[in-house]
Amino acid sequence: MRTLHQTFAVPFQFPVHFTSGLFKIDNPTLSDTLDARGDRAGKKALVVVERQLLKHFPLLLNQLALYMQVNVPDLQYIHKTIIFEGGERIKNDTGAVQELLKTIHEQGIDRQSFVLCIGGGAILDMAGYATSIAHRGIRLIRIPTTVLSQNDSGVGVKNSINAFDKKNFLGCFTPPFAVINDFDFLTTLDDRDWRGGISEAIKVALIKDASFFESIQRNAQDLAHRSMIPMQQLIHRCAEMHLQHIASGDPFEMGSSRPLDFGHWAAHKLESMTSYQLRHGEAVAIGICLDAAYSFLQGRITSKEFEAIFSLFRTLGFTLFIPEMKRSQDLIEGLNEFREHLGGRLTIMLLDRIGKGVEVNEMDQALLVQALQLLEKYQHQDFQVECNEVAVR
Amino acid sequence: MRTLHQTFAVPFQFPVHFTSGLFKIDNPTLSDTLDARGDRAGKKALVVVERQLLKHFPLLLNQLALYMQVNVPDLQYIHKTIIFEGGERIKNDTGAVQELLKTIHEQGIDRQSFVLCIGGGAILDMAGYATSIAHRGIRLIRIPTTVLSQNDSGVGVKNSINAFDKKNFLGCFTPPFAVINDFDFLTTLDDRDWRGGISEAIKVALIKDASFFESIQRNAQDLAHRSMIPMQQLIHRCAEMHLQHIASGDPFEMGSSRPLDFGHWAAHKLESMTSYQLRHGEAVAIGICLDAAYSFLQGRITSKEFEAIFSLFRTLGFTLFIPEMKRSQDLIEGLNEFREHLGGRLTIMLLDRIGKGVEVNEMDQALLVQALQLLEKYQHQDFQVECNEVAVR
Repeated sequence: MRTLHQTFAVPFQFPVHFTSGLFKIDNPTLSDTLDARGDRAGKKALVVVERQLLKHFPLLLNQLALYMQVNVPDLQYIHKTIIFEGGERIKNDTGAVQELLKTIHEQGIDRQSFVLCIGGGAILDMAGYATSIAHRGIRLIRIPTTVLSQNDSGVGVKNSINAFDKKNFLGCFTPPFAVINDFDFLTTLDDRDWRGGISEAIKVALIKDASFFESIQRNAQDLAHRSMIPMQQLIHRCAEMHLQHIASGDPFEMGSSRPLDFGHWAAHKLESMTSYQLRHGEAVAIGICLDAAYSFLQGRITSKEFEAIFSLFRTLGFTLFIPEMKRSQDLIEGLNEFREHLGGRLTIMLLDRIGKGVEVNEMDQALLVQALQLLEKYQHQDFQVECNEVAVR
Repeated sequence: MRTLHQTFAVPFQFPVHFTSGLFKIDNPTLSDTLDARGDRAGKKALVVVERQLLKHFPLLLNQLALYMQVNVPDLQYIHKTIIFEGGERIKNDTGAVQELLKTIHEQGIDRQSFVLCIGGGAILDMAGYATSIAHRGIRLIRIPTTVLSQNDSGVGVKNSINAFDKKNFLGCFTPPFAVINDFDFLTTLDDRDWRGGISEAIKVALIKDASFFESIQRNAQDLAHRSMIPMQQLIHRCAEMHLQHIASGDPFEMGSSRPLDFGHWAAHKLESMTSYQLRHGEAVAIGICLDAAYSFLQGRITSKEFEAIFSLFRTLGFTLFIPEMKRSQDLIEGLNEFREHLGGRLTIMLLDRIGKGVEVNEMDQALLVQALQLLEKYQHQDFQVECNEVAVR
């Protein structure tokens, strides 16, 4: 036997811009982004947009077309915009992906042309998948419009659709060409989506940064009342921590460890058990509280810490126990699905304290049932925990 | 506007083993490969195999099952082997990909379990695509069985299926977990497939290594008569050059330059124009001769060099002009499709001399028509060029 050994590294880079008024003629962000490699002339740009946005910004597509005409006339703007419904359902079959692929084919969008996707996490996931596989990868500019996608999924390297009733069964690891977060889009969110995205920020704070958790506590009332400045700060910090995590770790997840999946094994299962009526951020809030309760029952965190976490989510307006959680065995089956999706050994993040996660390789089913009962009990209590520094060790 | 800059590199490595008697109980290659990361225990292994091989090796699956049972009992071998027809047709619709995905789902194959794919380039391409997108990537062990896949596609980082009548429209860049070339499989090839794979070796020799070209010239008669030793040497050297090229260049092809696509713009179009009756290696032989003829007509290479190239392919038994090439405008349209697939500027490799390629950004249509006429004329001549050192400058 003879053997040749292949070894190489593939470098990736992309910017995450934060702006507002993205399509105003004098905002250079998009124009600069399209020309970041100095080669935009003659390239094409195809736009995919979430329908819901057009209700709030009926002139959005006209503004964008005008912006492109004025600022990037050397780029061939495809006027056949693709409009999709947002939400997780778009990921449940291949219809949207097929439509986007067909348009990429018909319009002759090549590997160095651009697809601009404007919308929430689900449509970004779907378009990210389609642009990853068409020609083995087309330049995707993500323009996330929700809290969740601006601070979490939209700045990462993953995309997916669901298949065989398994969330994210099909997908790729594909860094985007660029991400542009326009805070103006946040005004279009309903309260559920405004709130939902905060879960991922609390998640990353809980496992990595106690001071960030404290700042979210301090701003909880303002965030609940849709105050924009603390939300912008939260999104920026959360996105920054996600980017750092990806760059410093295992970007394409070849190992078993996925710290950012704290709270997610139960979240994924609850989304599926509710037929995606529960939105991702809402499910993550429950998943975090469940694994925090479990951490408390295992003696890893104090009752004060658990209550601080639970209370923060309550202040923000989350519901932390839903009827599906009474089907505890079905929910716990989510552990197996989670292990299968990741592969290898089950690896679950728990909390050692607020600001520090710890990985474990098994969960005790009886204790999980107790944790579920704890959430049910707390959900029905009108308790109020003082948010004070005692909780953060 | 504020901006965060994301930068990281993803390291990849995989071995390419050369062996024979892969499934003999005392051959450690496969066992060692499965345990390369020391974590095979509890993982699963699913096998995908090309039907044609089972005609030549009716006991192949029994041997493999026995091998696994004896040598890797800690791995869960899935006895439901998936058997597909080989050949490019398997890439023309999503049926095979769907069947493989469904089995991956049903059998609970996770991201760190293994899919072993035994077959030619088309089935490896298809299985590579399916295993790239399922769970965002399952470990694929490629066991290529043709000259073409052992020396070229099987050792690379690409996979694909065809869509919208465009070759390789859907696909990913995904390095395999490992590649195992078993020379015994070459005995199963018909003459067309034995011969076809030599094209890619001549291609890489022509653009990079004159001494390799000369060695193929020296061995041409033996290769034409299916002599195994020179074929093994050719495959090893060609695979080595491909690996070096990928590692030293732009593995995921983010730029416009693709030197290894020498001769491929016409090859892809001819495959499509003949509804894949022409096999890939046969089409590449024509594509190389066409671009060599064009290089000669442009004064880049001498008539002696062109004739040495043409003569080598003829000695090996290739047909270098087919009726479809009379539809020159249709064929030349392949340039546009090639540019669109790559994206960016048209970049075509021509020859400066034997052993040295040169990239150009346009091709003259009138000269291309002349090059086609030259091939037609030479095809009908029973000429014999002396293979001598004069041709290699």
